[in-house]
Amino acid sequence: MNEKPGRASALLARYGQADDVPPGPWNPVLESIMGHRSVRAYKPDPLPHGTLETIVAAAQSAATSTNMQNWSVVAISDPALRADLARMAAGQRHVTECPLFLVFLADLSRVARVGEEAGAMLEALPYLETFLVAAMDAAIAAQNAAVAAESLGLGTVYIGAIRNNPEGVAAALGLPPGAVAVTGLCIGYADSEREQAAVKPRLPQAAVLHRNRYDDADRAARASYDKVLLASSANSERISHTWTERVVSRLGTLSALAGRDKLREALERLGLPLR
Amino acid sequence: MNEKPGRASALLARYGQADDVPPGPWNPVLESIMGHRSVRAYKPDPLPHGTLETIVAAAQSAATSTNMQNWSVVAISDPALRADLARMAAGQRHVTECPLFLVFLADLSRVARVGEEAGAMLEALPYLETFLVAAMDAAIAAQNAAVAAESLGLGTVYIGAIRNNPEGVAAALGLPPGAVAVTGLCIGYADSEREQAAVKPRLPQAAVLHRNRYDDADRAARASYDKVLLASSANSERISHTWTERVVSRLGTLSALAGRDKLREALERLGLPLR
Repeated sequence: MNEKPGRASALLARYGQADDVPPGPWNPVLESIMGHRSVRAYKPDPLPHGTLETIVAAAQSAATSTNMQNWSVVAISDPALRADLARMAAGQRHVTECPLFLVFLADLSRVARVGEEAGAMLEALPYLETFLVAAMDAAIAAQNAAVAAESLGLGTVYIGAIRNNPEGVAAALGLPPGAVAVTGLCIGYADSEREQAAVKPRLPQAAVLHRNRYDDADRAARASYDKVLLASSANSERISHTWTERVVSRLGTLSALAGRDKLREALERLGLPLR
Repeated sequence: MNEKPGRASALLARYGQADDVPPGPWNPVLESIMGHRSVRAYKPDPLPHGTLETIVAAAQSAATSTNMQNWSVVAISDPALRADLARMAAGQRHVTECPLFLVFLADLSRVARVGEEAGAMLEALPYLETFLVAAMDAAIAAQNAAVAAESLGLGTVYIGAIRNNPEGVAAALGLPPGAVAVTGLCIGYADSEREQAAVKPRLPQAAVLHRNRYDDADRAARASYDKVLLASSANSERISHTWTERVVSRLGTLSALAGRDKLREALERLGLPLR
């Protein structure tokens, strides 16, 4: 728990510049968490026996609102189904290549079955709040899965593009009404010969951490981050961008949502009206 | 990474019964994650210097969709503000008692500021998809914060009731349009003299983990969990309940949502129309 040399270098990689994080605690869990990087090239090596179930136990160990556990996870091993899902998720090759691909669901169908069998009307089911909690609980569970996997020396990457076609994914996985895929997660051994996955620098804490009241005077912090990201992308990518440029290109046009501007209608058809 | 005695007992506590989790990997990170319990009684002891910033660095180390980082966190130390927030969050005493109280925001105001300064219209901002990603990224970040805190020997509990009154919380924290509190997180040293916080058993993996296709034949798994939860609550609470009873009481009536059935309208007024 004492200051270790690993702490300073982990923080430098995470912020891409000397940040204002004061000295503080350090341990192997923090080291594993802060070393996160997204991995998009995987070796074909299978995972040790029991890894999937251990990761799921870690996911289930996360907090869940009032113990409702309104999420599920589908592990996809069938190659044809992997290819289908990859096609629906912007053609990302790592979806087919990684040894373990998980699809996390916001799942209100299980409690709907509970209500049906108990002969009880569940009035709160069709509300935005109930769906939001299910999606956030799925995300919290998925993050425990990611941290657990990384602690085992495995790489991970989230697949948000699984939301590009919620109805297609629901049909492929045979989801009942009330369940929808909210994120995918690739897990496997990083193939460092094909990809040098690097820690992505984040916004300075000054732009993200507020004290008692929200402070919107973050212009200087964002400007310094623009420089960090420009330098970092120049090292690792063919074209370099500031964060400002990425924000404008990602959120500037509806077409960048890749169909997800129709998410609300899709959810309604999947039995999630979000009242 | 070999089978350790701690693994079997951690799984037994997590499922409350002999589960079908096969032998598998084990390490201190998994042990910390699987030992999670919600803590609602805190000692007044302050946290070591640098703990807040270390926890925030861990939170920022989590994956975030296309690096948009559409979340923020507000650390609340002001006692009057704590009392206000506790009152708005169902009067939960631990919100005022814990040494560190964090409020996680889905925050589209920062990228809105980026767009404004760049003179760019951000067409994707008012969509459900963009809000959902922000809320899920906030949840993923919060979970990294929780795991980081627990690795340091601290207890945590999520405060979903911070969504009971989104507009009141936004006013108290001075949130700009486009930002909303999606969860709170209490952090501190557990006061084990006042509360014996226990691991909460979860649904059997058979009810949560699916393989290739969703399997809705989970009746037996839910029935066995009803028994587990009945026994577990009989040990720790004055009134015992099955999970079925809890689901029906939690989701059966709109009043159990404690005002959150109006979340959609509140979000619209906070600048989040969720198209």
